[in-house]
Amino acid sequence: MKTTPPSKQSVVGRVLGLVAMVAMVAIGCGRAVAAPVPAPGEPPAPANAVERLIGSIRGQNAAYEKLTRLCDDIGHRISGSAALESAVEWAAATMRADGLENVRTEPVVVRRWIRGAESARLVEPRPLDLVMLGLGNSVGTPPEGITAEVVLARTAAELDALGDRVRGRIVLFDNPMPSFDAKRGTGYGQTVGFRLRGPRLAAERGAVAVLIRSVTAHSLSTPHTGVTLYGDTKVRIPGAALTVEHAAYLARLIQAGQKVVVHLKMAARDAGEVPSANVVGEIRGREHPEEIVVIGAHLDSWDVGQGAHDDGAGVVMAMDAAAALRRLDLRPRRTIRVVLWTNEENGGAGAEQYVADHRAELDRHIAALESDMGGFRPRGFGLDLQDAAAERAAVEKLRTWTKPLAKHFPGRWPVLEPGMAGADVGPLVEKGVPGMLLLVDESKYFDYHHSPADTLDKVEPAALTEATAAMAAMAWVLAESKERLTPMGASAPRSPGTP
Amino acid sequence: MKTTPPSKQSVVGRVLGLVAMVAMVAIGCGRAVAAPVPAPGEPPAPANAVERLIGSIRGQNAAYEKLTRLCDDIGHRISGSAALESAVEWAAATMRADGLENVRTEPVVVRRWIRGAESARLVEPRPLDLVMLGLGNSVGTPPEGITAEVVLARTAAELDALGDRVRGRIVLFDNPMPSFDAKRGTGYGQTVGFRLRGPRLAAERGAVAVLIRSVTAHSLSTPHTGVTLYGDTKVRIPGAALTVEHAAYLARLIQAGQKVVVHLKMAARDAGEVPSANVVGEIRGREHPEEIVVIGAHLDSWDVGQGAHDDGAGVVMAMDAAAALRRLDLRPRRTIRVVLWTNEENGGAGAEQYVADHRAELDRHIAALESDMGGFRPRGFGLDLQDAAAERAAVEKLRTWTKPLAKHFPGRWPVLEPGMAGADVGPLVEKGVPGMLLLVDESKYFDYHHSPADTLDKVEPAALTEATAAMAAMAWVLAESKERLTPMGASAPRSPGTP
Repeated sequence: MKTTPPSKQSVVGRVLGLVAMVAMVAIGCGRAVAAPVPAPGEPPAPANAVERLIGSIRGQNAAYEKLTRLCDDIGHRISGSAALESAVEWAAATMRADGLENVRTEPVVVRRWIRGAESARLVEPRPLDLVMLGLGNSVGTPPEGITAEVVLARTAAELDALGDRVRGRIVLFDNPMPSFDAKRGTGYGQTVGFRLRGPRLAAERGAVAVLIRSVTAHSLSTPHTGVTLYGDTKVRIPGAALTVEHAAYLARLIQAGQKVVVHLKMAARDAGEVPSANVVGEIRGREHPEEIVVIGAHLDSWDVGQGAHDDGAGVVMAMDAAAALRRLDLRPRRTIRVVLWTNEENGGAGAEQYVADHRAELDRHIAALESDMGGFRPRGFGLDLQDAAAERAAVEKLRTWTKPLAKHFPGRWPVLEPGMAGADVGPLVEKGVPGMLLLVDESKYFDYHHSPADTLDKVEPAALTEATAAMAAMAWVLAESKERLTPMGASAPRSPGTP
Repeated sequence: MKTTPPSKQSVVGRVLGLVAMVAMVAIGCGRAVAAPVPAPGEPPAPANAVERLIGSIRGQNAAYEKLTRLCDDIGHRISGSAALESAVEWAAATMRADGLENVRTEPVVVRRWIRGAESARLVEPRPLDLVMLGLGNSVGTPPEGITAEVVLARTAAELDALGDRVRGRIVLFDNPMPSFDAKRGTGYGQTVGFRLRGPRLAAERGAVAVLIRSVTAHSLSTPHTGVTLYGDTKVRIPGAALTVEHAAYLARLIQAGQKVVVHLKMAARDAGEVPSANVVGEIRGREHPEEIVVIGAHLDSWDVGQGAHDDGAGVVMAMDAAAALRRLDLRPRRTIRVVLWTNEENGGAGAEQYVADHRAELDRHIAALESDMGGFRPRGFGLDLQDAAAERAAVEKLRTWTKPLAKHFPGRWPVLEPGMAGADVGPLVEKGVPGMLLLVDESKYFDYHHSPADTLDKVEPAALTEATAAMAAMAWVLAESKERLTPMGASAPRSPGTP
């Protein structure tokens, strides 16, 4: 996953949304859907459906087997790569083989970024090859590379304090990520800022390139990439992540008063627009096939490792949750739609295209649940709605609906965290669809995230199975319950009438 | 550190040794030393000397500051490198500046091994650059590299079962190292065999090269090097370590029935004999300056990372233990000699040369205590003597002598483990000197060991300080106690009379 700005509307927006909702309910102008008419001959789901679903997923190793194929036969799969197109084909073929319905690829135009050859070398005070990965979407250096003195900033205030000393220099942003803490969480959000905005901030002050400390709390000489955002900045300078070890080393040298010079060489380039696709498959609902519960993840990955936790795990969870329903011949009241988005890591074009392609049925999207925190033990769900009151009401419903499930999962399951969703459901949330995120034990996620260490051996099969069961159980609850998660209109977009 | 074969003599040898000792004691032919004559005007050490010693080490950050210089100003330092010679100069100059006596470099001829450019690439079933490090002392490949199918062996039995399928192939030894376990220890000893002997074993069966899984339980795409031993095998084939991730990946492909082909290219070569040196400095004893307690570590490292835990930490512990005695103007009854051996990692020439240079005074070596398990929290000491009865008696003495120290260290300190010493004191143990090893919390040592991740940031200053205090306290106890650790003759070499 990547960091997304909170998709919450402002307080003013919330109030307007509430007013709009009340108005709509008052005048009966919500986007109506057809009244529930049970399909003739379609029997109701068995009372123990969710138990059978969880049992079937636990009785097989199917998600892990899918993940093995994705990781070992295809490997990492950045937007625009042949590997991603192989993954698209594989996912569609596998969904068809698993008996999903309406399996299709929905074209998406993505920008292709190519890393190319890259290196960073310490020139002064002594020669040393630095372990690095260019940041995603970074521009390259001139062919001969950039050689410049390195200045150190651990905070934005330190960058400001450097003043004119940034000009013509390489800025090293060395802000350590704290270790995972059960109360404070991962520390990723508070640390990733310089990866996202460091090159932009430094360019505005006249720097020629940026190095960051890899965004991770634990390194064994492990570089971590991830997207950088230039926004509308005019001068784009290259950015690369050093390992924690090498960033800390350079910082120590600079703090000890030594002159540090680095030679950075990156052939990174934007290779323009290329075709890609979201992959979609369904279990059609027996009563309200037109009402849709989306479960999904992103199929693309960074161009290192195997994209096992990020987000191969989410991909196979959603695929296997649907496959299990077919294995058991279970059909919920509403449609469960698996969506595997393309281009989450460096563009988000897949998520945007999904919204554009399905705008006519967005008000019939009950919820969109993604997994993008890795294939770890599940602990609950995040829920993000535009409207705070509707969000509170929905959390209460989920609390009630998931009570019968709690006995199937250990601990105080599930945690329900309001205001949490992921990058791929963000554009849906903007349009009023309740966004959800599978919450897992994320204590190790950022050790692997965006690095060559995000490989199949890091995924514990039993944990992936549990996460798959949790996603499947929640999908069933959302698709089967008599009541919708949000009342008609509650999940309407911010400005009623906007498509 | 590297693994050393147990230096214990056989049961027969033990019995003979015991007989010899009894005989020597009976006929009074032990190697006599001058009777203790207090130097005129040299006052006895204060009763609270060891408390002051520990206090001084805890009150400063001096060991860590030394380690910072060694890691950041010099860096990794393989035998024969300019960096190692810089380290020799730095260590001698620092010892002199700290006021140690008789500081000198003792010449050692070492073999220089040069890694050169190296790479491994998966050719079939799909192209992928593999993360690797050639094994230390490995021969290179032909300039064009070696391209061959890979066969898998996780055990020696599997290698045998491959029979003729090894011929002309690359053997992948994929034996996982178990995670650290407080009872069973690190699992290094049971795993390192294929690094040490894999190329030899495979060559004898007609293989053209060897790949091993890096000897570590935890990897974040981290390759680990280490020496391989050809012994007297006639055909030498190259050996390299893959990351755990890539070794496991290749193993999965092979187990899934896929044909795996790798292209291995290594320019490694033996560059012949070059001069190096052990670095020695002393705190001369006030009563028995001719009796010597050695404390030390190895100054060389592998050619990756910074050699921070292996064995920069041990180097600065020994240096700072002696420096603290000078800071306090404390002089023990016997001489404490700091020895920084060269060439531990890929030859052991420094340890052998020390024994040759000092053979005339080996019977006046009270003990030789090394640290080579990293700069972690100390937990006790290993003790290794040729003679089992003498070892038991010495452990009992240590138990009594260290009782007053226990209150200065947390937990049930110290653990005393018979039969444990390290590689550099091995040749001394063979000559009858009691060998000792500082035992530490080794739970993370092999995560870093021989890898690019063995860097200063992995060393916790407070832990290094405690380890330094433990080494200093034990050195003091050995050098100050009225009684010797072993009676005259008990630590004589296996065959009395052999030089």
